[in-house]
Amino acid sequence: MDSLASLILAPVGSIIALVFAGYLIKTVMKNDEGTDEMKKISLAVRKGASAYLKRQYTGVGLFFGIMFVILLILAFANYLTIFVPFAFLTGGFFSGLSGFIGMKVATSANARTANGCRQGLNKGLRIAFSSGAVMGLVVVGLGLLDISFWFYFLYWFYTGVQGIAPSDPALYQNITSAMLTFGMGASSMALFARVGGGIFTKAADVGADLVGKVEAGIPEDDPRNPAVIADNVGDNVGDVAGMGADLYESYVGSIVSSSALAVAAGLGLKGIIVPMTMAAVGVLSSIIGTFLVKSGEEANQSVLLKALRKGTYGSSILIAVLAFFLVWGALGIENIGVYFAILAGLVAGNLIGLTTEYYTSDTYKPTRNLAATSATGPATIIIGGLSLGMLSTAIPVIIVGVAVLFSYFVSGGAADFNAGLYGVGISAVGMLSTLGITLATDAYGPIADNAGGIAEMAHLPEEVRERTDALDSLGNTTAATGKGFAIGSAALTALALIAAYADEIKNIAEKSNIAFTINASILNPTVLVGLFIGGMLPFLFSALTMQAVGRAAQGIVMEVRRQFKEIKGLMEGTAEADYAACVDICTKAAQKEMILPALIAIIAPVAGGLILGVNGVIGILAGAAVTGFVMAIMMANAGGAWDNAKKHIEAGNLGGKGSDQHKAAVVGDTVGDPFKDTSGPSINILIKLLSMVSIVFASFILTHSIF
Amino acid sequence: MDSLASLILAPVGSIIALVFAGYLIKTVMKNDEGTDEMKKISLAVRKGASAYLKRQYTGVGLFFGIMFVILLILAFANYLTIFVPFAFLTGGFFSGLSGFIGMKVATSANARTANGCRQGLNKGLRIAFSSGAVMGLVVVGLGLLDISFWFYFLYWFYTGVQGIAPSDPALYQNITSAMLTFGMGASSMALFARVGGGIFTKAADVGADLVGKVEAGIPEDDPRNPAVIADNVGDNVGDVAGMGADLYESYVGSIVSSSALAVAAGLGLKGIIVPMTMAAVGVLSSIIGTFLVKSGEEANQSVLLKALRKGTYGSSILIAVLAFFLVWGALGIENIGVYFAILAGLVAGNLIGLTTEYYTSDTYKPTRNLAATSATGPATIIIGGLSLGMLSTAIPVIIVGVAVLFSYFVSGGAADFNAGLYGVGISAVGMLSTLGITLATDAYGPIADNAGGIAEMAHLPEEVRERTDALDSLGNTTAATGKGFAIGSAALTALALIAAYADEIKNIAEKSNIAFTINASILNPTVLVGLFIGGMLPFLFSALTMQAVGRAAQGIVMEVRRQFKEIKGLMEGTAEADYAACVDICTKAAQKEMILPALIAIIAPVAGGLILGVNGVIGILAGAAVTGFVMAIMMANAGGAWDNAKKHIEAGNLGGKGSDQHKAAVVGDTVGDPFKDTSGPSINILIKLLSMVSIVFASFILTHSIF
Repeated sequence: MDSLASLILAPVGSIIALVFAGYLIKTVMKNDEGTDEMKKISLAVRKGASAYLKRQYTGVGLFFGIMFVILLILAFANYLTIFVPFAFLTGGFFSGLSGFIGMKVATSANARTANGCRQGLNKGLRIAFSSGAVMGLVVVGLGLLDISFWFYFLYWFYTGVQGIAPSDPALYQNITSAMLTFGMGASSMALFARVGGGIFTKAADVGADLVGKVEAGIPEDDPRNPAVIADNVGDNVGDVAGMGADLYESYVGSIVSSSALAVAAGLGLKGIIVPMTMAAVGVLSSIIGTFLVKSGEEANQSVLLKALRKGTYGSSILIAVLAFFLVWGALGIENIGVYFAILAGLVAGNLIGLTTEYYTSDTYKPTRNLAATSATGPATIIIGGLSLGMLSTAIPVIIVGVAVLFSYFVSGGAADFNAGLYGVGISAVGMLSTLGITLATDAYGPIADNAGGIAEMAHLPEEVRERTDALDSLGNTTAATGKGFAIGSAALTALALIAAYADEIKNIAEKSNIAFTINASILNPTVLVGLFIGGMLPFLFSALTMQAVGRAAQGIVMEVRRQFKEIKGLMEGTAEADYAACVDICTKAAQKEMILPALIAIIAPVAGGLILGVNGVIGILAGAAVTGFVMAIMMANAGGAWDNAKKHIEAGNLGGKGSDQHKAAVVGDTVGDPFKDTSGPSINILIKLLSMVSIVFASFILTHSIF
Repeated sequence: MDSLASLILAPVGSIIALVFAGYLIKTVMKNDEGTDEMKKISLAVRKGASAYLKRQYTGVGLFFGIMFVILLILAFANYLTIFVPFAFLTGGFFSGLSGFIGMKVATSANARTANGCRQGLNKGLRIAFSSGAVMGLVVVGLGLLDISFWFYFLYWFYTGVQGIAPSDPALYQNITSAMLTFGMGASSMALFARVGGGIFTKAADVGADLVGKVEAGIPEDDPRNPAVIADNVGDNVGDVAGMGADLYESYVGSIVSSSALAVAAGLGLKGIIVPMTMAAVGVLSSIIGTFLVKSGEEANQSVLLKALRKGTYGSSILIAVLAFFLVWGALGIENIGVYFAILAGLVAGNLIGLTTEYYTSDTYKPTRNLAATSATGPATIIIGGLSLGMLSTAIPVIIVGVAVLFSYFVSGGAADFNAGLYGVGISAVGMLSTLGITLATDAYGPIADNAGGIAEMAHLPEEVRERTDALDSLGNTTAATGKGFAIGSAALTALALIAAYADEIKNIAEKSNIAFTINASILNPTVLVGLFIGGMLPFLFSALTMQAVGRAAQGIVMEVRRQFKEIKGLMEGTAEADYAACVDICTKAAQKEMILPALIAIIAPVAGGLILGVNGVIGILAGAAVTGFVMAIMMANAGGAWDNAKKHIEAGNLGGKGSDQHKAAVVGDTVGDPFKDTSGPSINILIKLLSMVSIVFASFILTHSIF
């Protein structure tokens, strides 16, 4: 088959993903929302989430407007091609749209899932999982659509308008170089969604717990708590919309960076085809995988877990088989090493997921031991959780290290440096190829969580809440794997982006006749200083996001206290709380607090670049990737382990609910909240956004830096 | 003056330092130990500390024996010069001896300080400060002695025995290359002292607090608490002996690495003279500085602080002046840039110290705000402290970055790469040149702390305890500056060592006719993987040391509970606790738990090197330096801020002692204990020991690595 023609698989895959997502939405919406009470609560959550997104998109719109003008000026000053500002917008738009659709479905599915759980566990799972799958498919569908559109448009422009011959290698260099800069829009949007959503959800969660559970002594999700709707809104805007935007940018970033590296490696169009069609193959495998997720009516948790695993492992195996023929067809048997790079990515993602599960699930020793440290109070469980998180970084780092070296050498890195780097980029694509289904297993958790909240608030029978809890807890286990993929792919994509950046600089210098050779040696002092600055950024970033959660939670605490005091009959259940006020506080706080971290991510590489130069930027990017990766794992696993240690005690172990040990575990869980749901996941985006910004400003930095 | 002749300043400085230390010991010992009760307690602490050190030196002796044999084998196989195994021993011996002497004096000074405080604050300060100064002077004296001895011995050997002409540049290359490997002994010893001492002190502290303060409700330092002597022993073996060994290795490391870089820069003997005589100048300035620390009898705290500051700033200014003439004389006016590198180091050290003080002292906003977060319980003060620590890393990173670039370029880095690196090494020497006096202001804190414990246990009047508390609190402020120097110099020294390592590899390759060119580019995948591995090591290391503290503290908790239960009349004060049992538990735990972290520090660069090769090792070293530096600051400042937030509340603010806010702050302080006194300071040594090990095994790795 002709190379260019086979690329049609990408848009076709995109359309299939979107159509199937539409089909799933229809199936989900067919289910009943349950009692009037349930409908009312679901509506309140939906309204709150929409209000939040509306405000977020207004604020983000302003940012995109300003950046668009800046990029336009850079384009007119010839530092960028004219398409970049527009692609910046489409990237941001589609990333935001993914989150929007995912959240719409999730907030429509919560009551339906709760209602499904009234009939049985399996019914609830089907609804929640299908809604999660919508998120997964929309992300890959829109991502592929954006990329395909720009590829074809640029191809038409450079061949049709500028008259570059299709056989000219410069053609693909122009195309991929332009496409590479597109990721900045998606990454910026993702950062806002993750940071804003993360602040919202944890401010509401922590605030609700601190006054409700601790001070007033009412249970979680009690409708008397004025922050309870905000808490449920938070699950949707943080864990669903935020995560969708996050993985959208990983997905797009890995494809555009490996396409650029393909050209650097001299593989041309054939090398571009692999990541783009791999994505399409991933779509098909994921859809087939969703059909594998089935189980009998009398399902218990371990049966359900098996059903979910069948779906994800089934997709992985399918991709592993199809990818072989794809690489063979596109690159020929002489480049079959690239296939093994894909495989390395897939395997590494799964292994990191398993490590995450080992360290954070209460079926294994680490979390059980952590729960036991609560015997000597909150201080020891905090020390225990922090050291568990730090300890858990060792294996993932080694896995990623092996995957990088393996992908590099198996793709021919020993003979050709660029071919090896292409292999590293492709392994990131491999890791993310199952995204359609892994995201589904990840996103259904918050839906189940919400369903549980609705079950509680609508006073449904105890067994319904038990079922939603089972789904939620299952979701925690599968989410661990999802987190492994998110963090691992972020590291690999970040490395691919650094390589792509270096390559981009080379291209720019050649085109502009600037005599510049990259010297990214660690012994070069600007690189070294860059490493330190970059290594510090994830710490600074985490500090700011954690402080933001603290401040916003404080606001919620004040408001809830006020309502408890001023609204008569609230505690007795005769008056209703002003839920909207809490949603409003979280919304405003999230908007305000996400600005500074986002600015740092954008200003640091530009300012750092202007002072330290291109080599310093490479140092900054590498430093941020290294500490960012390690910090992200540490925070995710410490947070997950604290969460599950608390649940382990709540399940009746070590004194059970209400005991002193439980109180100590609650402290751990509260500290873990911003770790695992705000700062940790935001770091993944930070390290890629830094690269994206550097790529967009590459030409500007190259001509204006001090060193 | 002839270059070689001027080098005599080094051993002369060493002798002066040691003689003056001896004089100070005499002065301190002239003071009375006070009541029989006080003598008895002091003796118990002294015995405990000696027992600990004896056991530690036995264990460490075994390690040194094994390493000596390994190094001997490597030397006979021609991977090392034959002197290395012996220098490894002397480095370890002198490092251990520094700690030993410092601790001996400190444990003899505690009762004398308490007794001095019976007479007045100033009297107490004089005794505590003089004892601290012994530590500082012994460290610099013995360090200079070791270095001088080996320099002269090697000079004699290479010129006298091997017949290399004094004018031959190869002579100094041989000398510095051999001297460079000597640091490994000092670093290994330092790691054991810091980790072991850190585990001991915090296990005793945390354990004593958890049962004594929290469970039994008896005050700190209450003689009924069986862990109280162990707690006081801990101050001495951790904060005094551990810190002494730590700074000994920083000091030696910075001098030998910049000597090696001097040769690489083509400066020969003249370039070696600068760091060695700088150290001697530092000794003189420090001694003069100690005479400036004087104050009237009616001194209050701010007067005392001023007195101490006069000493440290006076020494700094003196060094700044003398260094100018020294550099001028040694290197000529054309290389006067090196002087500014020294100045940059001095200024950077002071600035980092000020930053540390800003973030951790309750006179400033960050710690005050942190104390306020205790209003919503332990979870929020933990989140607040962690984010404070993370936030506080930004400025020191920028300070070090500026110092590195400034030192590099001002020393001629733009024209000559190696000259620039020499400048970076020299700035570390500059930063450490005031060590004699900064260490004194740092080491007197734990002595005052001990004196307070003795005052409490010996039932001295309230005013005595108030005075020792004032000294202790003053010590916390000056210790902040000391910590800034320790961390900042660790970063600079680590960078100098990395550069020296690269240079050493070049020399070995040339000598052995191995065709090898260093490619430490971040884009080189082995370097990149090395960066990740190295970046993870401080996390792994911190996890292990924190867990060790947790486990050992658990042991103390059990033992104290047992004694409270089994020893009748203990709580009533009619029976005496079995103090020795707790000392024994801490000693055994520290010995056992320090093995794994130490092995990691030694095995990681060797195993990593054998797999990833020399370039990968550079990646590992840089990765560890970056995250290690950031983590060390984070942990030191978070721990310091928690400590002072608690003290701020105890001083009567925000509800005062016994309030809920105080309880929350105690949780923060307990979490901060292993942060600031075990894991954090150990990281400083880790990052240098990794380099030292890499340098010693350089030749072996170069010939046997896979990549």
